[in-house]
Amino acid sequence: MGRPSTPLLSVDLIARATLRIIDTEGSDAVTMGRVATALGVHTSSLYNHVRNRAALVEEVRTLVTETIDSSAFHTFPWHEAVVRWARSYRAAFARHPRSVPLLMSVPVRAPRVLSMYEDFTVALRRDGWPDEEIVVVLTAVESFILGSVLDMTGPPAMFDPAAHAAEFPAFTEVIATLESSATGVPTTDRAFELGLDALIRGLRAQRRALPQTARRTDRITRDGTRRKDARDHGEHRSR
Amino acid sequence: MGRPSTPLLSVDLIARATLRIIDTEGSDAVTMGRVATALGVHTSSLYNHVRNRAALVEEVRTLVTETIDSSAFHTFPWHEAVVRWARSYRAAFARHPRSVPLLMSVPVRAPRVLSMYEDFTVALRRDGWPDEEIVVVLTAVESFILGSVLDMTGPPAMFDPAAHAAEFPAFTEVIATLESSATGVPTTDRAFELGLDALIRGLRAQRRALPQTARRTDRITRDGTRRKDARDHGEHRSR
Repeated sequence: MGRPSTPLLSVDLIARATLRIIDTEGSDAVTMGRVATALGVHTSSLYNHVRNRAALVEEVRTLVTETIDSSAFHTFPWHEAVVRWARSYRAAFARHPRSVPLLMSVPVRAPRVLSMYEDFTVALRRDGWPDEEIVVVLTAVESFILGSVLDMTGPPAMFDPAAHAAEFPAFTEVIATLESSATGVPTTDRAFELGLDALIRGLRAQRRALPQTARRTDRITRDGTRRKDARDHGEHRSR
Repeated sequence: MGRPSTPLLSVDLIARATLRIIDTEGSDAVTMGRVATALGVHTSSLYNHVRNRAALVEEVRTLVTETIDSSAFHTFPWHEAVVRWARSYRAAFARHPRSVPLLMSVPVRAPRVLSMYEDFTVALRRDGWPDEEIVVVLTAVESFILGSVLDMTGPPAMFDPAAHAAEFPAFTEVIATLESSATGVPTTDRAFELGLDALIRGLRAQRRALPQTARRTDRITRDGTRRKDARDHGEHRSR
């Protein structure tokens, strides 16, 4: 090849090349060999910078998620913070929707992402959510956000019942109503905002329905023995 | 090749071969040429059975969705029916999760799928949801279901904060609590049920908050002028 390719390599360069492959060819195309070819280097050179494929995925995750803002968890009540966080989360993935399947296939280890989960956890604890429910709530909210990202990538008119109007008259009518209403806001955005509002309303109702004693006990335990966490609250608030 | 391949072809055979490619290689691998190769025929032979790639996608959609049960919409209130439908929807896609990106890329025209949307629409109208909101609600619920399918395909332990425990103590603690609680129910299933319950609770609250007059008017209009739809209700109920 003649050119000194190895000195030009860096973790960032490798991650960006991988993300370009994902954006153009999809998640399934990502192998160490394919990334090496894209950079014009031997596969073995990659391993001087990233330990293995899982480590490469974490670098891609860091790139995709770098614009997600979880700072609202430090200052707003959890239910308002989740809305702000979810919007910036969806916007970040909307730029790289084809990365979703790859990122879902490997456990999260990237500090960038763990940091936003820490913010989420501290805010939900502060509001009295029991520890055993927090990851369940997080997973439910993320499923909705990532499903909404997929929906954004579809055609503007996702439903085309025209050829079967007589068979399915009610659905054909509501599609016609939607098309004629022309609010200027795409259905995918309206569905995201409506669903997010519904999800958070419902989660708040579920939280209120949790046994009061269990929540009290959890709080006392945390104030007493979990000093590290309590200090963490203070740090977050003062940022 | 020597063997008479064309007479062996059928729409069903082509759709099943396509779904096998999706299951093993992912959505991005689907081209008419790739499907023809898998079946050992010339690409031109496929066009005797499926008009174009979009038509092929609809055949795949029909295969993937054939086990989704929307009959609950005929007999249960919409909020209970949605829960039953969503569970069977998720289960159907859980068998072919890699089909999701392909199916999201082409507008829905398959009668099998339009039929379940018809059931959804009739049930929501019966409960007083205004026409202009029904597709928005449908899209929000589908985003949650398909996001949950993606989550199911991930590793059982999706979060691995171990290497950064000191930096993110609260999240590390809730992950440890989750792992030690061992309810026997995977987090992905708990998150689906919790999120679905929250979403439906929230949607019900949103429906109750709609202007009462608008809902009344809508009902009167429907009883008066939309006979076709009213008859449709009867047909569905008598099934």
